[in-house]
Amino acid sequence: MKRYPGEAVPGLIPQDSLFARLRGACATEWQAYTGHAFVRQMGEGSLREECFRHYLGQDYLFLIQFARAYALAAYKAEALADLRTAGLGMAAILDEMRLHVSLCQRWGLGPADLEALPEARATIAYTRYVLDKGLAGDLLDLHVALSPCVVGYAEIALTLRQSLSEDHPYAEWIGEYAGEAYQGVARSAVATLDRLLVERGGIGRMPALIATFRQATRLEADFWQMGLTLSA
Amino acid sequence: MKRYPGEAVPGLIPQDSLFARLRGACATEWQAYTGHAFVRQMGEGSLREECFRHYLGQDYLFLIQFARAYALAAYKAEALADLRTAGLGMAAILDEMRLHVSLCQRWGLGPADLEALPEARATIAYTRYVLDKGLAGDLLDLHVALSPCVVGYAEIALTLRQSLSEDHPYAEWIGEYAGEAYQGVARSAVATLDRLLVERGGIGRMPALIATFRQATRLEADFWQMGLTLSA
Amino acid sequence: MKRYPGEAVPGLIPQDSLFARLRGACATEWQAYTGHAFVRQMGEGSLREECFRHYLGQDYLFLIQFARAYALAAYKAEALADLRTAGLGMAAILDEMRLHVSLCQRWGLGPADLEALPEARATIAYTRYVLDKGLAGDLLDLHVALSPCVVGYAEIALTLRQSLSEDHPYAEWIGEYAGEAYQGVARSAVATLDRLLVERGGIGRMPALIATFRQATRLEADFWQMGLTLSA
Amino acid sequence: MKRYPGEAVPGLIPQDSLFARLRGACATEWQAYTGHAFVRQMGEGSLREECFRHYLGQDYLFLIQFARAYALAAYKAEALADLRTAGLGMAAILDEMRLHVSLCQRWGLGPADLEALPEARATIAYTRYVLDKGLAGDLLDLHVALSPCVVGYAEIALTLRQSLSEDHPYAEWIGEYAGEAYQGVARSAVATLDRLLVERGGIGRMPALIATFRQATRLEADFWQMGLTLSA
Repeated sequence: MKRYPGEAVPGLIPQDSLFARLRGACATEWQAYTGHAFVRQMGEGSLREECFRHYLGQDYLFLIQFARAYALAAYKAEALADLRTAGLGMAAILDEMRLHVSLCQRWGLGPADLEALPEARATIAYTRYVLDKGLAGDLLDLHVALSPCVVGYAEIALTLRQSLSEDHPYAEWIGEYAGEAYQGVARSAVATLDRLLVERGGIGRMPALIATFRQATRLEADFWQMGLTLSA
Repeated sequence: MKRYPGEAVPGLIPQDSLFARLRGACATEWQAYTGHAFVRQMGEGSLREECFRHYLGQDYLFLIQFARAYALAAYKAEALADLRTAGLGMAAILDEMRLHVSLCQRWGLGPADLEALPEARATIAYTRYVLDKGLAGDLLDLHVALSPCVVGYAEIALTLRQSLSEDHPYAEWIGEYAGEAYQGVARSAVATLDRLLVERGGIGRMPALIATFRQATRLEADFWQMGLTLSA
Repeated sequence: MKRYPGEAVPGLIPQDSLFARLRGACATEWQAYTGHAFVRQMGEGSLREECFRHYLGQDYLFLIQFARAYALAAYKAEALADLRTAGLGMAAILDEMRLHVSLCQRWGLGPADLEALPEARATIAYTRYVLDKGLAGDLLDLHVALSPCVVGYAEIALTLRQSLSEDHPYAEWIGEYAGEAYQGVARSAVATLDRLLVERGGIGRMPALIATFRQATRLEADFWQMGLTLSA
Repeated sequence: MKRYPGEAVPGLIPQDSLFARLRGACATEWQAYTGHAFVRQMGEGSLREECFRHYLGQDYLFLIQFARAYALAAYKAEALADLRTAGLGMAAILDEMRLHVSLCQRWGLGPADLEALPEARATIAYTRYVLDKGLAGDLLDLHVALSPCVVGYAEIALTLRQSLSEDHPYAEWIGEYAGEAYQGVARSAVATLDRLLVERGGIGRMPALIATFRQATRLEADFWQMGLTLSA
């Protein structure tokens, strides 16, 4: 039986984790994001190359802003260990961008070309929402806003990997995010949320955290839609 | 001869002001914003009420974020006078929201209903872009990002006022922004930019300031488009 | 029986409030702050005028930074009501500065002279600590860092008022902070902490909140000491 | 002829650099900082060990906050290259802390002991001043506030190295900061200031930049004084 994105992947996300609770509270939005047509078509290999290319360019710009969000997490660190962890998260993102540079070579696009692309509305909306949430709130708000992206990609890639055939056009993308390095990043993000919930959480925070998770998940779905419709 | 938005209005913006230079460098985007179909239809009185209503609700949410941006300007103040000015700017925005509350009464929408509306993508993109630009940069970056909205509305309203007839459906909106109180706010914003340019500017900053102005102007045009297409 | 600062004042601070818990956890530091020699001498009227004058000038600079901290609270607001409240808090501080201007007239010091004073180390340490805590943390962290000042002054003034005689040299200062307007500000700050605890608190946050309260209370005591020793 | 700190070291700081101009405008404060008794006694080897140890513990806490300041620079980056550079700066600081850990072993102090030390007032004042300046201002303000520390240490160590004898008690400290790795960090900081001046500077900014540099230099001198007097 073929599985589609949106179903939980065993192992990645413990059932009683904060992430599982947030995802459960936003099941409709989560399904719309992880089971988006862009994802399905990528899994089936039917996604038009220009859509993938448009997405990839915008994702490069997205990651620059996400690296800034991890820098913000480092600024907000209360202990040296948190500072180091945030620094590693930032380095991991800058590393993730190598995938984009590598994949974009086939179209003759170098790093400078990618950085010079105009930001699409969906890119601006999502990234600046996360940055503002992180500055106005605390580390827990920031990491909740980041998590649909960080963990969602791991979940999506694990599911897509099941339909991987030889010569799959998006094998590199799927392999990167389904690979052990990135899966470790995602598991660590899930654990960070649980630790922050203990340190900074409380029952009164759940409605706002769920609202943040829902909004970020919607903006992630918009990001796929932007790729599919080639929107500026 | 009937004039349309997008043409400069005499008096509001001195020719050698920073604002005039920024607007001149982004003439295409400025025309697309101030001469947008939404604006034209509002001036002609042909704009569908549901479009105006959708816009107005989102503009209410927009102003909450803009008040936060003025709060940010107050935080960033280096002198007491700047702090007071930013505080007045914040109060002026909270006051501007009375117009929205007053206009929305006809649809049975109170302040709590307005605040509970879901934010449209165009609202998120524009407001969070401004807030992030203001935090990452300095007061000059922040005020440049704010200016297409603050000054543009004054310019648009002055132009639309020329086509005002009796029983114009959008007379209150036009009257508010064409009125002396708001025109004074806009003139003061133009003067603030010039003062900040002296205090914090330099020839090397112009490309980045123009890029910020251009992006903010585009996001303003998107905001009209969101109203016209009733986009979420 | 004469009462000295440091004893709880009935009515101002409910026993089960977060503020009462924080104060209880930092009893030694609280006593060192509210019962500082500067305060005692002010109450007895024996404080040297030059100490009071030095303190007052630095407190003027302090309030400029505290107004920035309320601006930060406005930026961090999640709801319109919070934004308005923070805006009022900022206005209240700018108003409080009228006392300083009025008192400093006797020494021929105008507002511009006060603003031009060099900041003492104790002023820098305290104010920038609060601002950083507020930016790195959330609204609850910020308001906890602000509270030793806001509420402590109300408590100190209520106690000092009991020793007020005619011709007391510091009657204006004591009257301002013991007066109903400022007492209302302090009661409202206590209530804000309790509301934020419900909305954003949790048992895991208490150690960090206590640490913040303790540090801010120490830095308040340093501020009196700076006045007493005329330190730059 | 023996040279003392405070004299310019050839090569490190080009005469027409922004850093040289700032240092020249604050010559008295620069001399008080780089020629402080703590520095002189360290060079002569006569500094009491407990003073050095107190300084070193506080400097460890200082560097945690300075790493946060570089994280802030990364958040404020406008281009990917700046983001990477700031990330490297942050990593360099976290690396610099190895020196402290290594030196503190002789007193049985591990990293956790160091991190648990209470912050001295001088540490709080300096670090939070820099962080606030960086958030309220832009990258240029931030880097100017950082520069007395980053570049001053390189200058001091180069000068002290001239008096290095065998068995000098502070040879490791002097060697670290006079070493090529750290000298490269300092030269790069000088170059960054010049680049930022081109990109974001202007004649009108000089007074505020000088004021920031002066304040940060004073707070650096306070830091030595805190070591010398073992102040909390």
